[in-house]
Amino acid sequence: MPGDVGQMVEGERDALLEELSEFLRMPSVSAEERPEEEFRGCAEWVAEKLREAGAEASIMETAGNPVVYAEVGSGEKTLLSYGHYDVQPPDPLELWETDPFGPTVRDGSMFARGIADDKGDVMARIQALRLYREAHGEPPFKLKFLIEGEEEVGSPNLAPFVRDNAGLLQADACLWEGAMTDDAGRPLIFCGTKGMAYVELRAKGASHDLHSMYGGIAPNPAWRLVQALRTIKDEKGGLTLDGLAELAEEPTQAELAAIAEIPFDDAALRASWEVDSLDRGLTGEAALREYLLRPTANIAGIQGGYTGPGSKTIVPSEAFVKMDFRLVAGQHPDEVVRLIREHLVRRGLSDVEVVDLHGVETAKTPVDAPVVRQAVEAWEDVGSAEPVVYPTIGGSGPTALFTNELGVPTIMTGCVVNPESRIHSPNESARVEDYLAAVCYFAAFFERFGGSRGADDER
Amino acid sequence: MPGDVGQMVEGERDALLEELSEFLRMPSVSAEERPEEEFRGCAEWVAEKLREAGAEASIMETAGNPVVYAEVGSGEKTLLSYGHYDVQPPDPLELWETDPFGPTVRDGSMFARGIADDKGDVMARIQALRLYREAHGEPPFKLKFLIEGEEEVGSPNLAPFVRDNAGLLQADACLWEGAMTDDAGRPLIFCGTKGMAYVELRAKGASHDLHSMYGGIAPNPAWRLVQALRTIKDEKGGLTLDGLAELAEEPTQAELAAIAEIPFDDAALRASWEVDSLDRGLTGEAALREYLLRPTANIAGIQGGYTGPGSKTIVPSEAFVKMDFRLVAGQHPDEVVRLIREHLVRRGLSDVEVVDLHGVETAKTPVDAPVVRQAVEAWEDVGSAEPVVYPTIGGSGPTALFTNELGVPTIMTGCVVNPESRIHSPNESARVEDYLAAVCYFAAFFERFGGSRGADDER
Repeated sequence: MPGDVGQMVEGERDALLEELSEFLRMPSVSAEERPEEEFRGCAEWVAEKLREAGAEASIMETAGNPVVYAEVGSGEKTLLSYGHYDVQPPDPLELWETDPFGPTVRDGSMFARGIADDKGDVMARIQALRLYREAHGEPPFKLKFLIEGEEEVGSPNLAPFVRDNAGLLQADACLWEGAMTDDAGRPLIFCGTKGMAYVELRAKGASHDLHSMYGGIAPNPAWRLVQALRTIKDEKGGLTLDGLAELAEEPTQAELAAIAEIPFDDAALRASWEVDSLDRGLTGEAALREYLLRPTANIAGIQGGYTGPGSKTIVPSEAFVKMDFRLVAGQHPDEVVRLIREHLVRRGLSDVEVVDLHGVETAKTPVDAPVVRQAVEAWEDVGSAEPVVYPTIGGSGPTALFTNELGVPTIMTGCVVNPESRIHSPNESARVEDYLAAVCYFAAFFERFGGSRGADDER
Repeated sequence: MPGDVGQMVEGERDALLEELSEFLRMPSVSAEERPEEEFRGCAEWVAEKLREAGAEASIMETAGNPVVYAEVGSGEKTLLSYGHYDVQPPDPLELWETDPFGPTVRDGSMFARGIADDKGDVMARIQALRLYREAHGEPPFKLKFLIEGEEEVGSPNLAPFVRDNAGLLQADACLWEGAMTDDAGRPLIFCGTKGMAYVELRAKGASHDLHSMYGGIAPNPAWRLVQALRTIKDEKGGLTLDGLAELAEEPTQAELAAIAEIPFDDAALRASWEVDSLDRGLTGEAALREYLLRPTANIAGIQGGYTGPGSKTIVPSEAFVKMDFRLVAGQHPDEVVRLIREHLVRRGLSDVEVVDLHGVETAKTPVDAPVVRQAVEAWEDVGSAEPVVYPTIGGSGPTALFTNELGVPTIMTGCVVNPESRIHSPNESARVEDYLAAVCYFAAFFERFGGSRGADDER
C-alpha cells in the first residue's frame, strides 16, 4: 500500500537523500571531454543500485557512453522507464553559490547539477522500486529501466541502440524523464516533447582580427550574423523562417481541449524569472499556445571578437551563434536545417555556414491514453493537488524513438522538479520534500500500472 | 648627415634590435589588472633610455599609469613627439605562433605584442635621437617627448595631464605615433585621426539562464541585441543611426584632392585579409572614401549564453555587444552616445542599456601644413619610395588634445608598421629592415625640422 511506502520513506529519509547525494557527486557532464571511466563508473554505480532494488541490471555498450538496462517483475503488461545519468555542463561556474558537484541543502532544497535533470528522477524511481518490493513483493508486471549517458548532448547513440534492441524495449507504456510541478504546486503530466534542430551559424571575415580603423570597409562576421538573424525573426520578434510554419500539423481537438484546461499563470512565471513581461508581451492562453504549440528559434549562445574587460578595438575574424529551433509535429529537423540553408541562400547569405549539430524528432502520445489516466490516478492516490495534463512540453528529448518507432505511449510524470529548479542553469535545485514525495508517487504509479489498486486500463 | 646615421645604424644593428627586444619583453598591457610597479618599471626603463640618448627625462604622475616626459636641444622651434609604452592585450593567446612577450625574428620580421603599436616607434625615435646627437651634436630646436601608458584603454588620464601642462607641451608641430607603409611599400603620412565613441549595449532577460523549452515565451537578450543592432544598420549594411550623418562636416577641397592622389589598392588589401570582397562589395575610391571620410559602427565583440563545446540549450540571462563608432569631424563622442540612446528609445528599445565606455574627439591637421612638407622631404632624404599624404587615418587617438586644444599641427609619419603587421591581433610584427629604416628616417626628420638640411618652413 502507498501508505506503507510513505512511512518507509519517512523512516529512511536520511539514507535516501545520502544515496541521491552520492549520485550527484559524480560529474557526469557528457558535453565535456572527461575520462571514459568516469561515465562507466557512474553507469556501474546506477546498475548496482538497481540490483540492490531487486532488478537484474547490466551495462550495455553503445558507440558512446554506456547504457544501463534492467528488468524486474513479470506479468502481462510491461512498463519501460527512461532516464539519463549524464548532466549539463555546470558553467558559468562563478554563478554557483555552492559546488555544483557537492550537493548542499539550503532552505529545504538540495542544490546540485543534475538533481532536477535527471538524476533526482532516476534515483527516485530506483528507490521507489526497492520500497515497492519491500512493501508488496515482485511487481505483477514487467518493469524495464533504460538509463542512458548522453541525453544532454542529444542522445547521439540512442537511436541505433533502440533499433538494435527493439524487441527488448517493447512495452505497453513508457515513463520518460520526470515532469514538474507548476507554480501553484500542481503536478504536471506531459504527453509529448517538441522536436529540435540544433545548429550553429558561422560567419568569417578576414583571416585574422583587424584593427577596427578598417571597420567601414572590412567584412565583419558579427554584423554578418546580425544580417542573417534579422531575416529569421522580424522586428517584432515573430518567426519568419521561410516554410517553417507551413510544415506544422494542426493540433488535435483533444490537445486543444487539454490546453484550455491548463491553469497557466504567466504572472507567476514572470515573477520566477524576474522579468516585467514575457517575449513580445505575450500573456495568458496566447503565451501558453506559443509555448506548447509553436516552433521557436532560440539563440542559446552567440560569440565573436573581444569580450573581455577593457577595450580592444578590432574587427573580429569570425563569429558564431548557437541556435536551437524547437519543433512541433510535422517539422522534421533535417528538413528544417534544409529550410534554414535555403532561406539564407535566397537572401544572398550563402557565406553564412549552417552547421547541423543534431536533430530530435517531435513525439506525441494521445492525452487520453490509459497511461495518462494511471498517472493522474496515482497522483490522487498520494493525495496530491489536482494534476494537470499537458499535451506536450516545450523541451525535447529522444522520445520519438519510443512513440514513433516502437509505438509505445510515452509520458512524463513525477515531480522532483519545480519552477524554481533552474534546470540547465547555475544553482539547479529540487525541494527535499518533493524528492521524497516523488519516491512515494512512483511506488503508487507502479501499483496503478500493475492494476493492484483501482480499476484496470479498460474501465 | 643622414648618411652617417645610416652607417651607424648598420654598425649597431644587433645592439639596436636587442634594446628594442628588451622593451618588447615587458607585458605592459594597460587593459589588464597588472601590478602598478610593472607599468612604472616600464616607464622608468623608457626614461633611462631617453637619458642615455642625451635628454633630460622624468616620470610624471597621472591618476593612472605614469607619463614619461623628456626634453633635449634648444632653438626657436619646438617639436613634440608623442607615443605610448602600453600595449593591447595579447589574447587570443592560442593563435600566437611564438610568445607575444618573447620577441622572435622569422623571415626578416620580428614578432611581439607592441612592436608595431607603438613600442617600435617609440624606440626608433629614441635611438634616432641618440645617433643624431652622435652625428650632429645637440639639436638646433627643442625636442620634447611625451610617452604615456594608457593609450590602449583610451588615454583616460591624458586630457587632464595635457591641460595641466599646456605650457610645457607647447610646440610648433607634433609627431604622433608612427604611420605605416602601404602594400607597395610607399610610406604613408597621416594628418588626422578619427574620433570614437566606444560603447557597450547590454540586454537582460530572466534573472538566470532558462531551459530553452521556454524559447518561445522567455525574453532572450541575445535576440534583443539583434533587434537593436538591426536598427543601426540596414539590411545592406548601411549605417542608419538617427542623426549621425547630419553631424558630419564636409571634407575640405585640399583633403579631397589629397585623397584623389592616394594610390589605394583594394585588391592588395583583400589579399592581405584573405577575403573575396570588402564590406558591401566596396572597391577603389569608394572604399577609400568610406575608410577615411565616413563614420563606422563596428562590432568589436559580442557575447551571450553558452558558447563552449557541445550543446547547452538555454535562453541566456544576459548578452552584450562592444561597439566602436569611428567618427569624423563634427561628430563628437558624447553627442553620438546621446544619439544612440535616443535612437533606441525611439524604437521601443529603451531596455537595451547603452554604457558609455569612452570617447575620443576627431583631430585634423591641414594637409598643406609645413610639418607635412618636412615629413615628405625627410622621406626623400632617406631615398624612400614616394610618400603618400592621407588627410586622416581610420583609427583614433587622443590627437585632438594637441590639434584642437593646444593648437599644435600633428601628423603621423615614420614606418615601423606594414600592412601585414597585424596591429591589435595575434602575431603582431614589423620587418627588421623597416625598423632600422625608421631610425634613419626620424634622424633625417630631425634635420629637416631643425632646418639644417634643405629649405626652411617658408620656402
